[in-house]
Amino acid sequence: MTEDVEEIVVIPGDGIGQEVVPAAQRVLSAVANVEFVEADAGDAVKAETGEALPQATYDLVSEADATLFGAAGETAADVILPLREAVDSFVNVRPARAYPGVDALRPETDLVFLRENTEGVYSGHEDRLSEDLSTLTRVVTTSASERLAEYACDYVQDRDGGFHVAHKANVMRETDGRFRDAVVSVADSRGVETEEVLMDAFATRICLDPTQFDVVVCPNLAGDVLSDLAAGLVGGLGLLPSANVGTERALFEPVHGTAPDIAGQGVANPSATIVSAAMLLEYLGYDDEGQAVRDAVESVLADGPRTPDLGGEATTAGVTEAVLARLD
Amino acid sequence: MTEDVEEIVVIPGDGIGQEVVPAAQRVLSAVANVEFVEADAGDAVKAETGEALPQATYDLVSEADATLFGAAGETAADVILPLREAVDSFVNVRPARAYPGVDALRPETDLVFLRENTEGVYSGHEDRLSEDLSTLTRVVTTSASERLAEYACDYVQDRDGGFHVAHKANVMRETDGRFRDAVVSVADSRGVETEEVLMDAFATRICLDPTQFDVVVCPNLAGDVLSDLAAGLVGGLGLLPSANVGTERALFEPVHGTAPDIAGQGVANPSATIVSAAMLLEYLGYDDEGQAVRDAVESVLADGPRTPDLGGEATTAGVTEAVLARLD
Ligand SMILES: CC(C)[C@H](C(=O)O)[C@@H](O)C(=O)O
Ligand SMILES: CC(C)[C@H](C(=O)O)[C@@H](O)C(=O)O
Repeated sequence: MTEDVEEIVVIPGDGIGQEVVPAAQRVLSAVANVEFVEADAGDAVKAETGEALPQATYDLVSEADATLFGAAGETAADVILPLREAVDSFVNVRPARAYPGVDALRPETDLVFLRENTEGVYSGHEDRLSEDLSTLTRVVTTSASERLAEYACDYVQDRDGGFHVAHKANVMRETDGRFRDAVVSVADSRGVETEEVLMDAFATRICLDPTQFDVVVCPNLAGDVLSDLAAGLVGGLGLLPSANVGTERALFEPVHGTAPDIAGQGVANPSATIVSAAMLLEYLGYDDEGQAVRDAVESVLADGPRTPDLGGEATTAGVTEAVLARLD
Repeated sequence: MTEDVEEIVVIPGDGIGQEVVPAAQRVLSAVANVEFVEADAGDAVKAETGEALPQATYDLVSEADATLFGAAGETAADVILPLREAVDSFVNVRPARAYPGVDALRPETDLVFLRENTEGVYSGHEDRLSEDLSTLTRVVTTSASERLAEYACDYVQDRDGGFHVAHKANVMRETDGRFRDAVVSVADSRGVETEEVLMDAFATRICLDPTQFDVVVCPNLAGDVLSDLAAGLVGGLGLLPSANVGTERALFEPVHGTAPDIAGQGVANPSATIVSAAMLLEYLGYDDEGQAVRDAVESVLADGPRTPDLGGEATTAGVTEAVLARLD
């Protein structure tokens, strides 16, 4: 918690990113002493300049303490994967919870994925070995797995209980075996309990009873798919925030995309981005302010104005003003 | 459809496999002229002989037209992956549907996964490159993808509509890109419509509305996880059958495992294995008999005796007799 001005890089990107990021900026300005540096990325800037992620944006993000990113369209992978690298993000924190008053297939869902954010199939080395054959080299290191595990142990310190480790080590014995062994051994040495679950079994079990799970540590692609599954149980991607956390900086983004069907109409739901901004505040040490923003969003979701995705008729601005009004 | 005796290899395996496979054998015997050759695999035979999959079993399966497998415990991967190879199975057919009268999170779920069954991360080549680093070589070939696509095109011939192709080609550009391109190009050449869906987006979308999907073609691990997700939506693994289909032979298995908590009590639900047997009958050309078995299982699930997993008090034998009684 500091009285200095916090400089935050914002990248609205494409589609509704252009609507929800400014909404979150209003909320950030209301609770903290912040200044914004705006940067470009995504389909639109690619159409103009040929590059989805301009070097200037990459450089800004790799030097900022915190970045808030909206969404990118077709170029999403070209934007978000390098940006995760730019903040040297070793963990993607993905809370998935249902909100009171919002329709959800499993309203009791409330868990957090801690997704490995640097390797697995995302390390990206692929070869075209012949006309018929291509390969991808999936990478797992003990060091990255341990770094993630240390973070997970810190993360669960204030909760009762340890965490689950999801993997597919019965098939990927050497790589996911390494991941599992490294994570479990760090947890053991720190006195944190772990329970293993195969990623396929996890997919069944979370549907049957999501309350079995609290914190779930997983390799990169497993975290991608399983967190999107949890999103389905809480009623879609529209409410889910995320944080790409590195050692010295972090990048925050709603889990949803550009929503081209409603982009430009001013009716996008800003909640996921505003909660991502709350995570950003907490990351910078503004814990009370972060909590206040979360509470305000939750309160508005419970009985305030709603955007059309939640069955209401409110605008992005209307919801944002309601959140601002309920900040205490 | 033939009047010859059909020789079927049966491998009960471990746990409830020992109960549900004999139940399915009773049903098979009631509708077709079959003879069984029993073979061993799994934890129990490993404890005795040191080998989870005896060579004799492998050889039998690799020469039989059809095999019915129950379940294996800890050794599941050591048993089922080589057995899929033994039948040269290029596709794992996994129907996931809810049954009238059975509790399901999404009772409207009714789709079929056609899972690539030979490669992807399952090709299994892993290396320990240093103290810190292991790699896995994920393999995708055009030939395997095309073979799967041809099967999918045949499969959808009697349905209206084409199929979805689930993949993660935005990250695995070369390998899943090859998969997608090969599948889509076969479908195009056969006049079958396809729609692409990223596997993470699929995980969200199937929760929100499973009726969007009918037939879903996917790489090996995607099929593993996404079909288990669908199992969660229909109420668990207890009802789901599957077929590992090769060019000249096939192996059928319930999707569930050994259920150690209830094994030996005679109360395991035999439905998934009996429906797997129906798939086996259809594979051998006994279409009417297969349909009759399906109808009988569906009728019993709707209003017949139920095993404890479905809230009833019936035994495996009781349910099996009810199915036999309703065969017409
Ligand atoms: C856009 C894509 C590369 C990305 C990922 O796979 O990580 C997205 O699905 C996500 O989860 O943020
Ligand atoms: C036991 C395991 C190797 C297997 C797989 O991953 O294919 C199982 O999960 C399945 O889906 O049949």
